[in-house]
Amino acid sequence: MASTTSIIQPGFSCGGALSSFTAKPRRVVMVRAQAINPDIKKDEAKVVDSVLVTELSKPLTAYCRCWRSGTFPLCDGSHVKHNKETGDNVGPLLLKKQ
Amino acid sequence: MASTTSIIQPGFSCGGALSSFTAKPRRVVMVRAQAINPDIKKDEAKVVDSVLVTELSKPLTAYCRCWRSGTFPLCDGSHVKHNKETGDNVGPLLLKKQ
Repeated sequence: MASTTSIIQPGFSCGGALSSFTAKPRRVVMVRAQAINPDIKKDEAKVVDSVLVTELSKPLTAYCRCWRSGTFPLCDGSHVKHNKETGDNVGPLLLKKQ
Repeated sequence: MASTTSIIQPGFSCGGALSSFTAKPRRVVMVRAQAINPDIKKDEAKVVDSVLVTELSKPLTAYCRCWRSGTFPLCDGSHVKHNKETGDNVGPLLLKKQ
């Protein structure tokens, strides 16, 4: 994900008791890009998985999109822990046969 | 993803000219959990998408797993930019009809 860093220009107040007496703070937001896959197939340049949908055996199969599943590319529910720890809101892709 | 922070115990040298004269540094790695979805449906507690595979119109359809696609849940190739910027290795899930 991208984390944000706020830089307040010198000489400006950012909220607080003085804010009504100073110019509105000028906020510059820098977005720092970060990897989202900590562990899966890090020896591969790009992790691409294929599903031949005619071979799906179950009526519903969940595929991981949080990159934390122990059964990747399948979902094992790891997004629940990830979302709780980080405030994120990611979830799986569900493949349905009917 | 998880970013790592290394903490070197005080009194130890971490490499450099003195390393051969000091004890091997004891490294403690802290993993800081961070959200991986910056923008998509952030008003939803969990983003889950469903695909009825019998309704796939094309022989091959790519689904996003980098959470940066402008056509989410479909892949638009945004993982390429993300991987280049971060050194990550994520890619889409390909659904194939045959």
